[in-house]
Amino acid sequence: MIGKAIPRIESKDKARGKAVYTGDVVLPQKILVGKILYSQVPHGIIKNIDYSEALKVPGVKAVITSEDFKVKRTGLIMEDEMILATGKVRFIGEKIAAVAAVNEEAANEALSKIKVEIEELPHLSDPLKALETDSILVHDDLIKEGLAESMGIEGNLCSSMELCQGDIEKGFEEADVVIEDTFKTSKVHHCFIEPHVSLALWHPEKGFNVWTSTQGYFFIQQKLAAIFSLPITKVKVMPVESGGAFGGKVSLCVEPLVCALSMKAGQPVRITVGRDEEFLYGKPRFPATTKIKLGVKKDGSITALHSQIYYDLGAYSDFGPIMMYAATNNACGPYKIPNAKLEGYAVYTNKISGTSFRAPGVPQYCFALESMINRAASKLGMDSIEIRKKNAVTNGYVRVSGEPINGNSFLTVLDKAKELLDKNPKRDEVGIAACIWETRAGPSSILLRLSDDGRILIITGVCDLTGARTIFVQIVCDVFSVEPDDVEIIYQDSSTAPVTPPSTGSGTIYNVGHVVKSAAESLKSEIIKIAMERLECSDESEIEISAKKAVKKGTDKSVSFAEISKYSRHKLGKVLMKEASSVAEYNATLFGLQMAEVDVDTETGKVDVKKITAIHDVGKIMNPLLLKGQVEGAILQGTGFAVLEEIVFNDVKALTDNFSDYAVPTIKDVPEKEIIILEGDYSKDGPYGSKGIGEPPVVPTAPAIADAVFKKTGVAISELPLSPERVFKALKEKSS
Amino acid sequence: MIGKAIPRIESKDKARGKAVYTGDVVLPQKILVGKILYSQVPHGIIKNIDYSEALKVPGVKAVITSEDFKVKRTGLIMEDEMILATGKVRFIGEKIAAVAAVNEEAANEALSKIKVEIEELPHLSDPLKALETDSILVHDDLIKEGLAESMGIEGNLCSSMELCQGDIEKGFEEADVVIEDTFKTSKVHHCFIEPHVSLALWHPEKGFNVWTSTQGYFFIQQKLAAIFSLPITKVKVMPVESGGAFGGKVSLCVEPLVCALSMKAGQPVRITVGRDEEFLYGKPRFPATTKIKLGVKKDGSITALHSQIYYDLGAYSDFGPIMMYAATNNACGPYKIPNAKLEGYAVYTNKISGTSFRAPGVPQYCFALESMINRAASKLGMDSIEIRKKNAVTNGYVRVSGEPINGNSFLTVLDKAKELLDKNPKRDEVGIAACIWETRAGPSSILLRLSDDGRILIITGVCDLTGARTIFVQIVCDVFSVEPDDVEIIYQDSSTAPVTPPSTGSGTIYNVGHVVKSAAESLKSEIIKIAMERLECSDESEIEISAKKAVKKGTDKSVSFAEISKYSRHKLGKVLMKEASSVAEYNATLFGLQMAEVDVDTETGKVDVKKITAIHDVGKIMNPLLLKGQVEGAILQGTGFAVLEEIVFNDVKALTDNFSDYAVPTIKDVPEKEIIILEGDYSKDGPYGSKGIGEPPVVPTAPAIADAVFKKTGVAISELPLSPERVFKALKEKSS
Repeated sequence: MIGKAIPRIESKDKARGKAVYTGDVVLPQKILVGKILYSQVPHGIIKNIDYSEALKVPGVKAVITSEDFKVKRTGLIMEDEMILATGKVRFIGEKIAAVAAVNEEAANEALSKIKVEIEELPHLSDPLKALETDSILVHDDLIKEGLAESMGIEGNLCSSMELCQGDIEKGFEEADVVIEDTFKTSKVHHCFIEPHVSLALWHPEKGFNVWTSTQGYFFIQQKLAAIFSLPITKVKVMPVESGGAFGGKVSLCVEPLVCALSMKAGQPVRITVGRDEEFLYGKPRFPATTKIKLGVKKDGSITALHSQIYYDLGAYSDFGPIMMYAATNNACGPYKIPNAKLEGYAVYTNKISGTSFRAPGVPQYCFALESMINRAASKLGMDSIEIRKKNAVTNGYVRVSGEPINGNSFLTVLDKAKELLDKNPKRDEVGIAACIWETRAGPSSILLRLSDDGRILIITGVCDLTGARTIFVQIVCDVFSVEPDDVEIIYQDSSTAPVTPPSTGSGTIYNVGHVVKSAAESLKSEIIKIAMERLECSDESEIEISAKKAVKKGTDKSVSFAEISKYSRHKLGKVLMKEASSVAEYNATLFGLQMAEVDVDTETGKVDVKKITAIHDVGKIMNPLLLKGQVEGAILQGTGFAVLEEIVFNDVKALTDNFSDYAVPTIKDVPEKEIIILEGDYSKDGPYGSKGIGEPPVVPTAPAIADAVFKKTGVAISELPLSPERVFKALKEKSS
Repeated sequence: MIGKAIPRIESKDKARGKAVYTGDVVLPQKILVGKILYSQVPHGIIKNIDYSEALKVPGVKAVITSEDFKVKRTGLIMEDEMILATGKVRFIGEKIAAVAAVNEEAANEALSKIKVEIEELPHLSDPLKALETDSILVHDDLIKEGLAESMGIEGNLCSSMELCQGDIEKGFEEADVVIEDTFKTSKVHHCFIEPHVSLALWHPEKGFNVWTSTQGYFFIQQKLAAIFSLPITKVKVMPVESGGAFGGKVSLCVEPLVCALSMKAGQPVRITVGRDEEFLYGKPRFPATTKIKLGVKKDGSITALHSQIYYDLGAYSDFGPIMMYAATNNACGPYKIPNAKLEGYAVYTNKISGTSFRAPGVPQYCFALESMINRAASKLGMDSIEIRKKNAVTNGYVRVSGEPINGNSFLTVLDKAKELLDKNPKRDEVGIAACIWETRAGPSSILLRLSDDGRILIITGVCDLTGARTIFVQIVCDVFSVEPDDVEIIYQDSSTAPVTPPSTGSGTIYNVGHVVKSAAESLKSEIIKIAMERLECSDESEIEISAKKAVKKGTDKSVSFAEISKYSRHKLGKVLMKEASSVAEYNATLFGLQMAEVDVDTETGKVDVKKITAIHDVGKIMNPLLLKGQVEGAILQGTGFAVLEEIVFNDVKALTDNFSDYAVPTIKDVPEKEIIILEGDYSKDGPYGSKGIGEPPVVPTAPAIADAVFKKTGVAISELPLSPERVFKALKEKSS
């Protein structure tokens, strides 16, 4: 069953329109419509909020402001984020108030009647300038309240780090070529099909039932419990399908608002964030400015790297600090660099915050590093693959961060790329970029249960973004030699489902799959033990498991799973269930490389991505269909990031608010794709040696495309997206 | 916490209108309205069913007949009942077809367009006549198919039994007084507030989700799985509140129909049985005819009993065989009778079937036996209490059935009654009747879980009719010394909830409570074990549990339940959960006695029940508020049975179809109630020594009232209800 191309088990329901998303949930009670009032001022002091007129609008059931929350702040990593603006507003789009009404019209009318007086303050739009000033402080209140210090905030610098190895100056001295540049990436949106939707039902004794489009039920549960000072079991986050997330649904969004509104209105309340709100006020990928200096010898060996990554957090940190930490840790990419200084900065400005987005922080940085490697190769007249082979990390190599590489496939990836390139008559025009990825081991748990009908239930509360459920079913099928119809995924809410981490970091199958396998094996052992008793065997090798039966080998004696379950319940007094809670011990390192072929229209500057060839190591292919879907989607998202997508700002005000203005790739923009998956460099802890593939394929696409443009036109562009304007300008500059 | 008068934990939701019953359930998809076509012919051969015109009615989505079921028959005990009439109809009210449509109007119109051709056959209305004939056979097809024999069916006799002890003829010879009579009880309806409502949603891969007003989710699951040939986990019976049941919701009702309709229509379908349908076609209490002959010596000792109980099953057996078995087994009541012949007969006729109804079978029989005891006392000029003391069973006494008495409170009950009577100046007018009840031990299971917030979750799928949830919370509170808010009942559907038997036989707290207590104690042990490790104790006596903490006695060192849960999950890799599955070993016998005071209007025959004094043994009072509620409700139901309630028939056609015609007691009929609960005769296996009290208080009310009428007027009436007509007629006969 492992390695089979089984469609996602929920795909039929999604195709039939029967999958239930938060927007589909109905309740016996009338669900009120919630709406949010956003700040239109980038920075200012709230002098007064008067919603008395809003309450008079017929059909309005509740209005909330920051006053309705005892706990004012929350946050994904650091608690620096106001649930509703308190004292100040910090960006255009900050949530100030919310209303609940019987319909959208009444809710909108109520919003229009809320009077907010704000005394505008000067604002910060540029992170590098924000670092230099003390006169405009985004989080002056945290400083005043004495909280900034313990949170590590200095002025507008939310958090920073520096890693050093070797002697950077000596390194650059040893280099034959030293190149330097500054790279910029834009704010891009996840463009999940389903916007943020949350629904809450308050019960005075039992607390909240919450339905929400999220990547992590348990995280939402914990955060809401903290905000409302409730025991966690009084916040039940209910399982619903998620219509795309890509990292953009890790944080709290409108969950605290629907909860507070439901509590105040005494009715369930749902907020469906509009597409315009997602674009204007939602959390995109953090944009980055990366200053990079690279020293290389004539033979291609890298002698020194100095990188400074500046992430523009916007007003609140969200995923920023951990992203900055992870990106800085891995700023050497998949290369052995003896002398390195890696700096990371996460800086507050008065703009919309960003959040996690598929391979958070890495596409921004990889664009800079891989572009520099390609430019160095070009300077040295060296092959793009060769320079990478020269510096490639191998298994056990200890990085600047102190973390070892747990994977040995980079050279295999490079060899495969060379093999393909050598066959390509236009090889000199092919853009190249590599990536390194770390699937991180984390704690997880699962509950497996044998039922009286011999079927095996997998009880979970995991958010399935990538087909995790399907893989879990495959694992159980494999362990028990049963068919998918003999296994069922049972979702439970966060009060009883086994705790799983949010579905992030390409770690769901790696970590949850790990416990699914171990729980399945331990349940199987128990089944065999009972079968031995029933079939009078003295050794488990006498038992064979097949077709939901335990058979005594070489005889026609057998006992069915159904009988074993009933026997266990009735005679042994126990339900056959196994909860596995464990931590995979080892991280897994995996590598990839993508090759881009482009046409550039020199008249217009338009980059037409013709083909992307993606080579990725996954350890073990669990399901080729799902795997291919992940890689294809990532390539498309990487292509959008490379050439099309950008939330356009006028200073601190987002302008792009719809899919006509925001150029997400359409079917006409889809490049030809060749996907090569390498197996064999098995992980130690992923089930069957698998590694996480959800994120890495989105990483090298943009730098590969930039390299192809570079190779095709000779212009090296350091800012994304490679829009017609930008490319045209660069071509013009070059020719002039 | 045990013994505290805590209101039912769901009572606030019920009062607020927020409790969710099947009728309240909403689904993302449009729920179709299901309606049933009933036979208006009592017995006949179905020649043809044509529903082609019904399908043309706009909005009609599906029509089903017996053709739509591969499995045609089901049944509570014996599989003799047609899901939809197949080949024949057997009573007025038999379900022939069902439709699902977008609204009630379309559904009703469709029903009116179904053409059913039936060739009418002669029918049976009297069970005694049915026994004598072979020319009219209710289940000729079972006989033809060769199934009748293995089911024990002979002609129209569904099942029968005979128990003998001593020498009955010698017993009657020894008697000084021998009396004989035939008693009859009528069909009475449970009158649950919520009629039968069922809703099903078919999913092609996952099977059915079913919401239904039932007493047993797991029973419904098993029956539906069998009918639709599905593994049981593909039938998920979802927890909803039940709006009263009283035994009338043990069997399948419209569940197979909504399932088949949903499967055929591809949409969810709900059938809400109308009050008129409940009265006309629903299953009431089986009426009984009891022939009884009693021999008594002058000193009051009973020498012989010959009883013949005939239950009129109607067309299908439902609960009948087991009820007949239980009643016959206990036909000696709480009396030692050396010579006895106890016969029981369950007989098919062409009438609506009956079903279980609070203390199934017993009120019918007890009316006969207790009336005879009172008449014997009267003949002997003996006190009603004295004659009972003379023959009272005591602990360990082995009954005719071979089962021992496990309880010793009958004499205490009688002494208490005497004490009260002696204070009553009108003692000679007080009607008396006693009862014996057996709470039967059965298998049950429960899942308890300590959460990371230190709260304890009770995971169950029990149907709570009598406040079971509240008692379970009290038990857990007692074991862990916590408050009710620290405990929560979590309902899961029948695919994952621990299996519990249907809520019947006054056994829910006895059996499920038994495992709740043992699971709680074993979870507590585990908590203490971890606390010992954390607090460095070598013996568990050093640990004290209080306020969700384990405290090291005599120190200020403690570890909270929350910390213990997290430590166990994170460090020991296990969730603290305990599933207890076990069987209470011993049945518990309990006794009761009720005294009735009445006024009889000799002009009209109207019996006015002034006061009922109820004395009942419960072993241990778990919650006096809930206990009182059970006894009060039972007295009222017993009063209705005694003087008011009857579904009136014209031959085999029910006429009573509403609450104006069916005289359920109203607030004006409520007698004064004095309730005396005796504790101390603890059961061996019920939690804290408790016994089941749901049913016994409904048993002696009617014979006590009949006795009061007898004592007051001298007329001994042998048929219920003691309606004005009946009493007036008896008074007239006596005076003439």
